[in-house]
Amino acid sequence: MIFSKDSRATSWVESANDSQYPIQNLPYGVFSNSGSSPRVGVALGDQVVDLCALHEAGLFSETSVGSENVFANDALNDFMAMGVEAWRSVRRQLVALLIAERTTDACDVAIEPNTTLREDAGLREKALVTRANVQMHLPSRVGNFVDFYSSKEHATNIGSMFRDPSNPLLPNWVHIPIGYNGRSSSVVVSGTDIVRPSGQTKADAAESPTFGPCRLLDIELEIGFLTGPANKLGSPIPADKAADHLFGMVLVNDWSARDIQKWEYVPLGPFLGKSFATSVSPWVVSLDALAPFRVAQPKQDPPVLPYLRTDGDWGFDIDLRVHLKTATMSEGDTICRTNFKYMYWTIAQQLIHQASNGTNVEPGDLYGSGTVSGPTPDSYGSLIELCWKGTKPIKLSSGEERKFLADGDTVILSGCCHAPNYQVGFGKVCGTVTPAR
Amino acid sequence: MIFSKDSRATSWVESANDSQYPIQNLPYGVFSNSGSSPRVGVALGDQVVDLCALHEAGLFSETSVGSENVFANDALNDFMAMGVEAWRSVRRQLVALLIAERTTDACDVAIEPNTTLREDAGLREKALVTRANVQMHLPSRVGNFVDFYSSKEHATNIGSMFRDPSNPLLPNWVHIPIGYNGRSSSVVVSGTDIVRPSGQTKADAAESPTFGPCRLLDIELEIGFLTGPANKLGSPIPADKAADHLFGMVLVNDWSARDIQKWEYVPLGPFLGKSFATSVSPWVVSLDALAPFRVAQPKQDPPVLPYLRTDGDWGFDIDLRVHLKTATMSEGDTICRTNFKYMYWTIAQQLIHQASNGTNVEPGDLYGSGTVSGPTPDSYGSLIELCWKGTKPIKLSSGEERKFLADGDTVILSGCCHAPNYQVGFGKVCGTVTPAR
Repeated sequence: MIFSKDSRATSWVESANDSQYPIQNLPYGVFSNSGSSPRVGVALGDQVVDLCALHEAGLFSETSVGSENVFANDALNDFMAMGVEAWRSVRRQLVALLIAERTTDACDVAIEPNTTLREDAGLREKALVTRANVQMHLPSRVGNFVDFYSSKEHATNIGSMFRDPSNPLLPNWVHIPIGYNGRSSSVVVSGTDIVRPSGQTKADAAESPTFGPCRLLDIELEIGFLTGPANKLGSPIPADKAADHLFGMVLVNDWSARDIQKWEYVPLGPFLGKSFATSVSPWVVSLDALAPFRVAQPKQDPPVLPYLRTDGDWGFDIDLRVHLKTATMSEGDTICRTNFKYMYWTIAQQLIHQASNGTNVEPGDLYGSGTVSGPTPDSYGSLIELCWKGTKPIKLSSGEERKFLADGDTVILSGCCHAPNYQVGFGKVCGTVTPAR
Repeated sequence: MIFSKDSRATSWVESANDSQYPIQNLPYGVFSNSGSSPRVGVALGDQVVDLCALHEAGLFSETSVGSENVFANDALNDFMAMGVEAWRSVRRQLVALLIAERTTDACDVAIEPNTTLREDAGLREKALVTRANVQMHLPSRVGNFVDFYSSKEHATNIGSMFRDPSNPLLPNWVHIPIGYNGRSSSVVVSGTDIVRPSGQTKADAAESPTFGPCRLLDIELEIGFLTGPANKLGSPIPADKAADHLFGMVLVNDWSARDIQKWEYVPLGPFLGKSFATSVSPWVVSLDALAPFRVAQPKQDPPVLPYLRTDGDWGFDIDLRVHLKTATMSEGDTICRTNFKYMYWTIAQQLIHQASNGTNVEPGDLYGSGTVSGPTPDSYGSLIELCWKGTKPIKLSSGEERKFLADGDTVILSGCCHAPNYQVGFGKVCGTVTPAR
């Protein structure tokens, strides 16, 4: 169920209209309230629609999710494993149940309202939960977390700072969506405090390393995709099947300890400089909700090898922001405005490459894009770029300055797609830095 | 329950005595037979002792595993999560049930036989399963897989070949147990065929990369440890608590595509060159079974930072072998003999370092040692070292030569600890290379 970009469809749940979670969005998440078990819902305006309750009421009996309640679950993995037909049939039914009046999808197929929920006060009472009162959980059990490095601007900035400004990209970068395996156990949901990590660091002038709290704590603004059905170990995913394995996207803050990373990362890559925490937003925006915001990806030159060639547009026009609030600030400042459309390597290419050696993707895996940086200095998605390796401190409206994060700082990443008459929002992912233990 | 190194204890299950799986070993694994559900057992001679059946018979009621049958499970994770007191109480009870006659442990505490199983033919029928007839499964659901690089000899060999023979170790190597996150989904149990991976490679003289089957397929002989109880995210594991989180060890073959790895690995480390498959042996040898084989680790110079300092001996005297059998050979050749005692960084230091930034370890995680190489050319644990980057092909008894693996080759890693009157064996981990798809 894909809406056109100029859709004017609205929901009878009035808070949905003009919100980041209108009828055109319907992102999936796992929530609980007042001591209840975690279960699957979708965000709609200031409400959460409880899919577990709708399933119990028999409202998914004509979809392809089956009679077992896949939404009575503390993670989306089982639903993700069902594949694109199940996802689409559920989305279509949700639109029918929640839409204000008859509408058409992007292919001009009519969608008739199903008034069952709207007209049943008892069911509404059960299935619509005030979003302000729920606790959100990780959307999936992340079995595998991979982090890419797919922004040409970011890789160029980092290469300029740490290697050679006249030749900042390594030769493999334009041929391979470079990535590495991250740590799954420390992927946490938005709102989780981030304990400042300790680790080994070595000052350039020092003879030996020391162990202590990280002094160069940074963020990375990323978007991550979560996977659907598995491929079999040993069987790559061909380019034309990538979409079958893509469930949806979330915001990711890939917290980074730059001083730990600098000392440890040769020759095997980032390890403890990254593994202490990775935060994700709780609402997973589906590929169908994002379809109206597809744009051409940047031209890839040199041309990529055939196994990485995909049809259609795989860029996504998603406005992204980084917001920093120190302990003394009541509001905080926006310190970065950028867009996901700048990414050189696409999510399809990341997935295809990851599986090209036969590695098996599993439902609920998280694949981070790498830092999203745009072309201008205010569009860089990490502090190390924004303050250019500490040489240009960020001046905040409170009069404070930041090169890297201080204890008590809160970082909020947000993302939103804008259509003429509606928005598809990612919400936000936030975290506050607490002192080292 | 730790046996002394000169123990002469035997089991009334006679095949145990003089085998790699005597009463002193009792390694844990997950098995199934003739269509039954996977469940937990221990290897004893040519038998598997079915712990699920023993639990059902009430024989663990006086241990600390509780009344719920933690062994009726397709993975060891729940038992691993119970911690060292539960592990020890189960081991003590198993020794009592399976031992031939009264004996004493390493602290001279008496162990009286419990004849319940021995004298109950019906229960013996249920609980003793012929090992040749069972199928082995992965011992744990591996949520997180980390691979270290802890052999000084291996790191020196690789540094000599690819960087600078006069200065092969990078400066951080003697201060940090260098490691990286690996891929969990492709950890497979011994016996799983290994499909030759395809990937991007670039010849030194070529202008551009190409995509195709890996030509430099290698192995890495490793030992891995599996973890017990979790630490809380943000709370490091102090050095004196490391042992509480160490459940046991397995053999690991970290299959490696050297040509893919070479082109992809800067700057973020190995990715698709490693992620296509990692094989582990099915039987997990406990730290208590390995206790008699502890030896001093190599002297660490310069001294390690205080957070990495541990008490006692953390080296393990484990003989290791690599066996290579081509498709034309009926027997195969031993191409490497080495020992785990050569490892510079210990499993305790690997665990402490991994958690030093607050990263949470989870029950059932796998931590590979990195290639185990000894001081002599016949003790190197990878083909790239054995054939010295292709310059010294390995001559096999069949008349064939190998630099790297050919389709149809089978690699078998084995490991064993030797006491005067018994052995504690790891069994083996094997895999056969099948053609690229």
